[in-house]
Order: sequence, then C-alpha cells, then structure tokens
Amino acid sequence: MSLRVGVIGAGGIGSDHIRRLRWTLSGVEVIAIADPDGARTAAVAEGLDVTIESSGAALIANDRVDAVLVASPGFTHADLVTACLAIGKPVFCEKPLAITADEAWRVVEAEVATGRRLVQVGFMRRYDASYRALKATLDGGDIGQPLVIHAAHRNPEVPDWWTTDLTIKDSLVHDADIVRFLTGEEIVASRVLRPRASSRLADVQDPLVILLETTSGILVDVELSVNIAYGYDIRAEVIGETGTAALGDGGLVTLKRAGARSTDVPTDWRQRFALAYDRELQDWIDATSAGETTGPSSWDGFVATTVAEASHRSYQDGQRVEVQLADRPAIYR
Amino acid sequence: MSLRVGVIGAGGIGSDHIRRLRWTLSGVEVIAIADPDGARTAAVAEGLDVTIESSGAALIANDRVDAVLVASPGFTHADLVTACLAIGKPVFCEKPLAITADEAWRVVEAEVATGRRLVQVGFMRRYDASYRALKATLDGGDIGQPLVIHAAHRNPEVPDWWTTDLTIKDSLVHDADIVRFLTGEEIVASRVLRPRASSRLADVQDPLVILLETTSGILVDVELSVNIAYGYDIRAEVIGETGTAALGDGGLVTLKRAGARSTDVPTDWRQRFALAYDRELQDWIDATSAGETTGPSSWDGFVATTVAEASHRSYQDGQRVEVQLADRPAIYR
Amino acid sequence: MSLRVGVIGAGGIGSDHIRRLRWTLSGVEVIAIADPDGARTAAVAEGLDVTIESSGAALIANDRVDAVLVASPGFTHADLVTACLAIGKPVFCEKPLAITADEAWRVVEAEVATGRRLVQVGFMRRYDASYRALKATLDGGDIGQPLVIHAAHRNPEVPDWWTTDLTIKDSLVHDADIVRFLTGEEIVASRVLRPRASSRLADVQDPLVILLETTSGILVDVELSVNIAYGYDIRAEVIGETGTAALGDGGLVTLKRAGARSTDVPTDWRQRFALAYDRELQDWIDATSAGETTGPSSWDGFVATTVAEASHRSYQDGQRVEVQLADRPAIYR
Amino acid sequence: MSLRVGVIGAGGIGSDHIRRLRWTLSGVEVIAIADPDGARTAAVAEGLDVTIESSGAALIANDRVDAVLVASPGFTHADLVTACLAIGKPVFCEKPLAITADEAWRVVEAEVATGRRLVQVGFMRRYDASYRALKATLDGGDIGQPLVIHAAHRNPEVPDWWTTDLTIKDSLVHDADIVRFLTGEEIVASRVLRPRASSRLADVQDPLVILLETTSGILVDVELSVNIAYGYDIRAEVIGETGTAALGDGGLVTLKRAGARSTDVPTDWRQRFALAYDRELQDWIDATSAGETTGPSSWDGFVATTVAEASHRSYQDGQRVEVQLADRPAIYR
Repeated sequence: MSLRVGVIGAGGIGSDHIRRLRWTLSGVEVIAIADPDGARTAAVAEGLDVTIESSGAALIANDRVDAVLVASPGFTHADLVTACLAIGKPVFCEKPLAITADEAWRVVEAEVATGRRLVQVGFMRRYDASYRALKATLDGGDIGQPLVIHAAHRNPEVPDWWTTDLTIKDSLVHDADIVRFLTGEEIVASRVLRPRASSRLADVQDPLVILLETTSGILVDVELSVNIAYGYDIRAEVIGETGTAALGDGGLVTLKRAGARSTDVPTDWRQRFALAYDRELQDWIDATSAGETTGPSSWDGFVATTVAEASHRSYQDGQRVEVQLADRPAIYR
Repeated sequence: MSLRVGVIGAGGIGSDHIRRLRWTLSGVEVIAIADPDGARTAAVAEGLDVTIESSGAALIANDRVDAVLVASPGFTHADLVTACLAIGKPVFCEKPLAITADEAWRVVEAEVATGRRLVQVGFMRRYDASYRALKATLDGGDIGQPLVIHAAHRNPEVPDWWTTDLTIKDSLVHDADIVRFLTGEEIVASRVLRPRASSRLADVQDPLVILLETTSGILVDVELSVNIAYGYDIRAEVIGETGTAALGDGGLVTLKRAGARSTDVPTDWRQRFALAYDRELQDWIDATSAGETTGPSSWDGFVATTVAEASHRSYQDGQRVEVQLADRPAIYR
Repeated sequence: MSLRVGVIGAGGIGSDHIRRLRWTLSGVEVIAIADPDGARTAAVAEGLDVTIESSGAALIANDRVDAVLVASPGFTHADLVTACLAIGKPVFCEKPLAITADEAWRVVEAEVATGRRLVQVGFMRRYDASYRALKATLDGGDIGQPLVIHAAHRNPEVPDWWTTDLTIKDSLVHDADIVRFLTGEEIVASRVLRPRASSRLADVQDPLVILLETTSGILVDVELSVNIAYGYDIRAEVIGETGTAALGDGGLVTLKRAGARSTDVPTDWRQRFALAYDRELQDWIDATSAGETTGPSSWDGFVATTVAEASHRSYQDGQRVEVQLADRPAIYR
Repeated sequence: MSLRVGVIGAGGIGSDHIRRLRWTLSGVEVIAIADPDGARTAAVAEGLDVTIESSGAALIANDRVDAVLVASPGFTHADLVTACLAIGKPVFCEKPLAITADEAWRVVEAEVATGRRLVQVGFMRRYDASYRALKATLDGGDIGQPLVIHAAHRNPEVPDWWTTDLTIKDSLVHDADIVRFLTGEEIVASRVLRPRASSRLADVQDPLVILLETTSGILVDVELSVNIAYGYDIRAEVIGETGTAALGDGGLVTLKRAGARSTDVPTDWRQRFALAYDRELQDWIDATSAGETTGPSSWDGFVATTVAEASHRSYQDGQRVEVQLADRPAIYR
C-alpha cells in the first residue's frame, strides 16, 4: 500500500518534490495537488492520476489524502500546517515553518495539543551524506569535544529583490538547524557582524558573519555570502579538543587542464542537495507509513526561526542578542 | 501501475536488490522470489506480499511477473535469461551474463531472434555518478582525444577459494566494460603482466596488470589488486591530448587527527557503488515500464566475457592476445 | 665579500639561525656570538671561527660585526635593537620587537632618528611560499576585493607555563602581521571571543577566536588553538567578491592505508616554516650587503604589538577595542 | 673556506647553476667559467670575480679550481668528466653522464681506476622533498613490500626538433633512476608500448608507455607525455602489499573561482624542481668540501643510460628487452 500524498504548491520546490515522489521515491503516490496558478498546476499534473484541489484547505480535507506536503509560499505555512494538525493528518512542511517565532510557537502548541508529533520540517541538510558522516565522526569521539565551528553558506547569486533580512531569515535557518543537529545543543546567543560589503550588490549587506553560541559555549562563526559568483558552496569545519573534522571538499572528477588541477563546485542548491531531498522525503514516507513522525520537528522549525529573529535584532542594533526559548515540550524530547 | 518483478536468487546481491526494490526505488513491487535455499527465501520474503516459486523456471513462467531479475549464481545466468527471452519477458541479469563467451553469444543470438532488446546486464559502474561525470568531461572535449587510461581495481581481501582466474573473469569484466563506456570503442587486444606477487596470498598471482588496447589504439593499463588490505578503491585516469581527467578521490569528511589529514576510503563495493545500484535498477524499472530496454546489453555482457577470455589466454601464455568479436548485431547499435 | 654577522642568543631559534647562516645561506659568515649560557654558547660555536662576546652590548660594539641578529629573550629585544640603531648598525630582530607597544614605539622613534631603515623584524610568514602565492593570487584580482578572512593558528601543545596572555601576545602577532601583508591595510579594531575551553589545559582559555577589522572593513576571524594535539596547522582563507583563495592543504605524500587516504600535517613550526626562515634571512643578508633594509620593519613590529595589546584589553573586558596607531613615519611608507 | 668551483657551460642549466652557486648556496664561490659562446659567458660572468677560461680542458687544469661543474651539451660530458678523473678533481656532471652506455662505462672504468668516487651525476629528483618523503614512507614499511609503481612524466611542450628517441634517452633516464632510488633494486627489463599518438605532434610518438621490471619483479609503468599542454607534471604512485603511497598533488594555494576549486600545476621543470636543484648542489658542495662524494654516481648514470638503450631497442622492435649490466664495482656499493 502506497502512501497517498497531497501536495500544496506546484512552484519550484513543489514541482521538484512532485517529480521525486513520482519517479524516484518508494511507497508513495501523489493523488492531489493544489496551487492557485492553474496553468502551472496543469503542467505539473500532466500524466499523473491526481485530483486538482481548489485550495490547500480543500486538499487537506480530502479523505483520500493520507498525508500532506506543504510547498507553498512561506507565509502560508503556519496556517496550512495548523489545519492538518486540527484533523490529525501528517504533514511535511518546507522551511520555514512560519514567518515569525510567535507564529511558529502557535504551530508547536497546536501539535502538542494533539499529543504526538505529526509535522516534519524540511531541513534537508540533516539528510545529506556529508553532514551525516560529519556527525558520525563527532559522535565517534575522533576529535574530542567540539569547541568551535567554522561554517560558510555561499550562493552564487540572488534575485534583484533580495534583502539582507532574507539572508538572515531564509538562509541562516539552515545553518542554525544543522549546528543543533551536529552538536545536540541549543543556540543561546547570536551576534551579527558586517564585514566590508561586496560591490556586486546594492542595498544588501553581503557577506554577513554571524556568531552563534551553544548551550555549552561552542562558538560558531557562519559566513553568509549570497552573491559570491563562483558557486553554491556549503562548508562546515568542527574544531575539537584533539582534531578537526570538516565536510569534504572533493568532486566527482579531478581535471588537469591549462595549468590547473581542479574539481567542480556545485552551481546551485538543487544540485548540491538533490540526494538529501530524496532521503528526506523517503524517510518521511517510510515513517508516516509506519504511523510515526521522526524527522526535524515543529520545535526545530520554531527554534530556527527564533534564532533568525534574534539575529535580525542583532543585525539592527549591533549587539549580541540572547536567544530566549520556551521549555521544550515533552513530545520533542 | 507498478512494475511487478520476480527475483531469482535471494543471496548477497539478490537480497540487496530485493531490499532496494522494496524500500528505495519507485514504480516497482517484488511479487515473486525463487531460491533453492528455503530458509533464506523465507527470511527475505518476510513482510513482503510475494509468491515463493519453486524454481527460476516457474518464476519466469508466472504470468503476473512483468519482468525478471536474475541474481542467482553466475553459471545459471545464461539459461535463465534465455528462458525469459523465449517468452519475450524483460530481464535484468547480474553480471556475468554467462560463464563463457560462447554461452554469452548464444544469449545474444536468442535476443536477436526476438527482434528487439529485452536484457539489461548489471554493469552498475555505468550508473556511478563519478564515472558519468568522467564520461561527460571526455565527451565535452576538455582534455582532447583520450590516448591512455590508467585504471586500478582494488579489493581489501578475497575469500580463501579465490584464484587468479577469478581476478580475470570476475573483476576485469567491470574494467573492460567501463573502458568501452568511457571511450565508445571496442577492445581489440589484451596482455596480462605478472608483477611481483603479494606475499599475503598463496597460490594467487596478485596483483595483475592488464594492458587493453581499443580500436583506435588507446592503451589502458588496469592494475587489479584483490587483497590490498587498505580498502576498496576504484581508480581511473584518462590521459588526453591536452589534459587529464580522473575519478575524484575525496571523501565525505576531512579529518585532521594525530598528525594526519585524512578522508575515508570505502571498505567494500556495496558501500562504493550503493547509489549506482539504485540508479541502475531504477533506470531498468523506468525503461521496462515504458516498454523499452536501454541499459548495458547482452552484447556488452558478451564482449566483457570475450575480453576476459582473451586475457585469460594471455595470462597463460604470456603473449598479447587479440580480441576477436563477431559483428555487432543491429539491435545493439 | 661575505656579510659578517654577530648573533645574540644561542638558544632554540638562535642556534637554529646560526646553523642556517653557516650551512644553508649564501654570502654570510657568523663571526661573533653572545649568550649568557657559556656551555650552550660553546656547543653552538664548535667548529666555527667566532669570537665569544661577553654580552650583547659588546657584540654590537665589535667593529668587525657588520650586522647583528637578535635572538635573545623577547624582553631584551628593544634595548639591543636600540643599541644597534645608536651606532647605525643593521639588525635583524626576532619577533616580538618589544614587549609593549610603548617600548616598540621607542624603537621606531630611534630608527626614525637615524633617517633610514636599519631594522628587520622576524615575521617569517611573509617569506613562506604559500602565503606569497596567496598574496599574488589576491593581487592578481582572481577573486576580486577581499571581504572576509578566515584564519587559524594551531599548535599541538604548549609548555606548562603557558598563559592565555601568551596566546595573544606571542601567537596573535603572526596573524596580525600576515593580515596586513595580505591586505595592505592596517588593523583598526579587535574583539576577543571565548569559545568553550578545551579540558586539556587548566587555567588557559583555549581556543580563542579573535575578530580583527581592517581599514576598509575586511573582517578577519582568527582561531587560536594552542593545544590541539593533532599538529601544527596554519590556515588562511580569503573570501573575495567572486571567489575564495586559501593556503594549500596538501602534503608531500598521499598515503592510502588502513581505510584512509591521508597526508601528513606538520608537527611543529620549525618544520612548517623551515624554508621561510631560510628565505627571510637570505633576503636580509642580500639586502644588508647591498646597503638596504627591505623586510618587515620596526613599524610592522610596533603595529603587531599594538594589535596584541588592544586584543588583550578586549580579552579582559569583553568589548571590541579600537586599535589606535600613530601616523606611519615616512621611512616606512 | 669556500669551495672554489669552475663551471663548464653557461647556457640554460649552466647559468641557472651559476646563479644558485652565487646567490643561494653556502660555502661555495664560482671562480672560473668556460663556454665557447663569448657573449653569453660575459653576460653570466658580470659582477662575478671569475676567470674566463678558453676551454673546458683549460678550466679543469686550473689549479685554483677545487671542483668542476659540467653543464655543457651532453655529448661533451664523458670526455670532460674523464679529464677531471685523470687529475683526481671532483666533478658534478649534469645528466646524461654520457650519450651511450659504452661511453658511460668508460667513465665508470676511469673512476674505478682512481680508487674512489669523484663524480656526482645530476639526478636532482633524488633531492626533491616529495620523492624523499615517498622513499621514507616506503622504507618505513607503511604499505609493505612495493609490487607495482605507476609513474608519469609529462611536459607541456617540446621544441620542433624533438624526436621519440629523445623521449627515451633524455626523459626516461630520470624515471629509471628514481625507480632505482625508491626501490633499491636494479632494472632488469624494459618494454616500450605505443599508445594512440597525440595529433599535436607530427613525427613523434607521444605518449609512450614504458614498462620496467626490477630485480625482484616490481613492475613499473611509466607514461611519458612530452606535449600535453596543461603543465609539467611528475607523478609516482607505489602499490604495496597493504596500501599505496604517491607523490602529493596539492598546490600552494587553493582557489575557488568560476565553478571550480583548483590548484596550480607547475609550468616547467625549473619551477617544479627548483629546490631539488638547490639541495643537490648544496649536498655536492658540502660533501666535496669534506673530501667525499656521496650523491648519484657514475654507476647510476651508466645504468640509466643502459636502461634507455634497452628501451630504445624495445621501441624499435616491439619486444621486451632485458637490461644487461656489468657487475657493480666495489666503490659504488
């Protein structure tokens, strides 16, 4: 029996997920799609035996839909997830879980009210083979207790409408979440630094360097460069008491040509994290089919948004800002 | 509609394939299994809604089985594939296609008699991301015309019963096939060299260095080391007119510890080629569901076995041996 | 005609320099040595045709000594260099130039009073082939304007008597100087962060992360780990507008063994910078023989000490501290 | 007391050696130069206090010359070295020691007649830090007994007048010698293979792959590509019983730019082996000053030429050719 999934949002990431649910992943079928853009929906639905729903709410209410995948614009996420929770239907929600920490907290409360986990949030890095191997290395004790983490999150370019706020609210959440994944600790403070800005972008402070501190004092410096031209490059190096462990930096092919020895750098996030997206959704399908929810949670989504908000305040006033978190509800422990 | 697959052979590679058909791949279900070892079959079948068939022949004859996957011992392959061809049923056959070139040729003739391709042979390296990127680099012209290829095929260890013959017949076929994939040329000659032998194995000449020549004169040196302890390591470097391109040699994590900077080397072929096996079978499922067969063919299986036989003669008499191939039938062009 | 050099200090770095002056470098001879430890001096002088001077002052006054190399303990540097300046004798002074910025400034004033440069300070990193290639890459414009620099300075271990103050005053000066070399800018502010401390050292805050800012706003994060066990590892990665450039991280040999692919990490600074020390002194010998002084200057020594002092204040009070520099005297432009 | 050296040959390598003797190395002065090209000699001698000798013979006969460095064209080497031997004067001879094995053997006999070693041959690779580290790794037993060596010797381009003979006689000698250095064994056979030839060179078979066999059966495949455009690249990978060890392949700087992560490849042999040349001559100076000769010997030069001759026969007739060596005289053991 395949899991019958309804997908809300047929844009970039939504259509990509529909493709992988259809062609790549196991134990699943897409049976419903909802998106306000009819033409786009029709294109995505071609060749699929799906119901086109008139709205996210209608899709969620469809009894044949076992589980919902939310890939609509971020500002709609919290309401759609809450609607799923209201009827106890499992839901995978692309990040961010919500636009504000308050809104995210309301999702957490709604899920806690159901008495169990039903929501997985799309922090796909946790499913990336490199990050998993890095965590295994740390957990194996090879370098002792982590003390410092150097991270970088680099995009080759951003659209015209990009703002520094988006760097903090949209990009940083991935780094904040993966630090929690790697260390098993919460983030307790953030400070945003403004290096010399690239002349390639007007009106955007790029890069940023953001300093995060964890519960035990691990210091994380995250360089966020959203317009660095050369590629999409995600780096993390953990400094332990007796050694360091970093994401590998190799490539599929080593080329020697024209005076240089080189490997390719990925050009975008889809290429870099294609397999992580596959694993993330397969994990969700398998767990959901088994009546469980095990991936990144609403709590994780709430915390990432809270860290982003604290970072945004730090960006505005230049001070170190402490991250204030409620107690973690029992269902997330 | 899922493709209904019957699997013959529930041993190492067979049970691994059943696992990926069940849990990882899309558009497929395993509906029948045949293996003479009843206990093993029962274990593999647990939790699956499958028919246990009394023999490979019975499984092939089962009308509900859309397509057959052959993962039984090598000496059974040719007969099982021929039985599938006799009734026009698509079949994926693990390598080798046959034990001898003559036997492989009979499979080719049987397939040609059906008027179309129905057989895919399990040369999974063609689906490995590194080899694909290497081929794309060559095809892109970055290093000009290939002239020499340095290859290595290293296993950490082999079982007690290993023989030098197996190195040639079981291991070399992968290298022979991938050279054809990379260059688009046939192999026309082989010469087997006997370097100083490792003291780690009695009665086995290890390593071997085998020199293959392609139609246009590209020279390939393949080092085969079956008992080199340190890991499972597959290397290929293509020397072109203006540069070189090689399989990447990085790892998921870079560790600095105890005076060294290191990355892991895979320990076995399952780890190294896990994703290639996934892609290989997904490709077969997708093509078969679409009424086609597109992967490595019976002809490829026949050629690899022919090259191995020529190499074996060279190993015995120390001379360069020419590889004699029949004309390639039209369905394989 | 060889340059006749007198060496003050025959300890670790002093005896090492005497060895390279004698056996490795060109156009130089050691003709006098002064060190209060007679036994040590005798050992170092064995086989050399040198005068053993009773004190640094006596050595400096020796008319046969063309130029002086100061390798005695740091607290003696400023006075010895000033004594050389008083009689217009060229001097190479190991870092630090002085213990305090005030003291270093007095050396600068003394040199300015001579009307020309006579002092070279031992910032050997400027002569390291990797740093030079990195600077050439930046100057060549390959990555555009530098915006951020990630640096790390790691020692495997420190003696019992090490203190956090020494990390700032003794280690950081190298990083501060090389940042100035790479960027051609001054450092205008420092902030010292205290990550979770390693349990391997009592009473020392290790690691430190120090944030330096340059004139144009380039942000430099320097991780200083003085007791990280795995090796002596010096890292620098410059983030530009369109790319990044980093010190290479390879090794002389790539070893595959026991499941890992590895290269060696240096075990100490002597090994890492052996060739840089050679080049530094050869450059000094050549320039001095030509009647010039061209390497790192008293001003560079003064600035490095000033940055260290500002960093020390930041370490104590936790605040960002601005670096206040006097105007750079004309002879250093 | 500096060693007073006379240099015969002021062309490419000769003028380069004069530069390093003058500016870089210790304990040496150039006091005489002989070269038939007067203008070139004058240019090289400028600023040096040297005697311009009318011929190599005159230079050798000059009593003030302690030791001779021969850097004239290869066909003059044997006679010049023999002239030095006749009067017991130490001599450093650039490779090749002689044009033919017979001629080289006459040099060996002349040296043996003196009863001691007086000749060092310019196999500079033995002084390269990477090769030395590789040998130390092998000697340390990290990978067990060597069984196979993969080597490559690549030049970006050759002059118009290049011939395949030169690839064998001029280039291969370096690889032959370094194999002997790494393994401590003699080479007993050679076979030259002709891969598909590059279209970049008319009338030259490029690349060649040459198979060498050592006393104990170690098989060495040497790829010689003299016109591969991308750079000057020297590779060696030793396959042992339990692992592999290879020359490192890193660079001084790692650049990320325009979709690629890259390091530079050297453009020519001068750049690649600059430090090895320095060490080679410093070693010769130090040993000669101490009354000894310790580097690569006439025997090594003779053997390399003998291997090249055997390889040339194999190139002509396509067969494996055994290398026949006389007994090694006692002074070379």
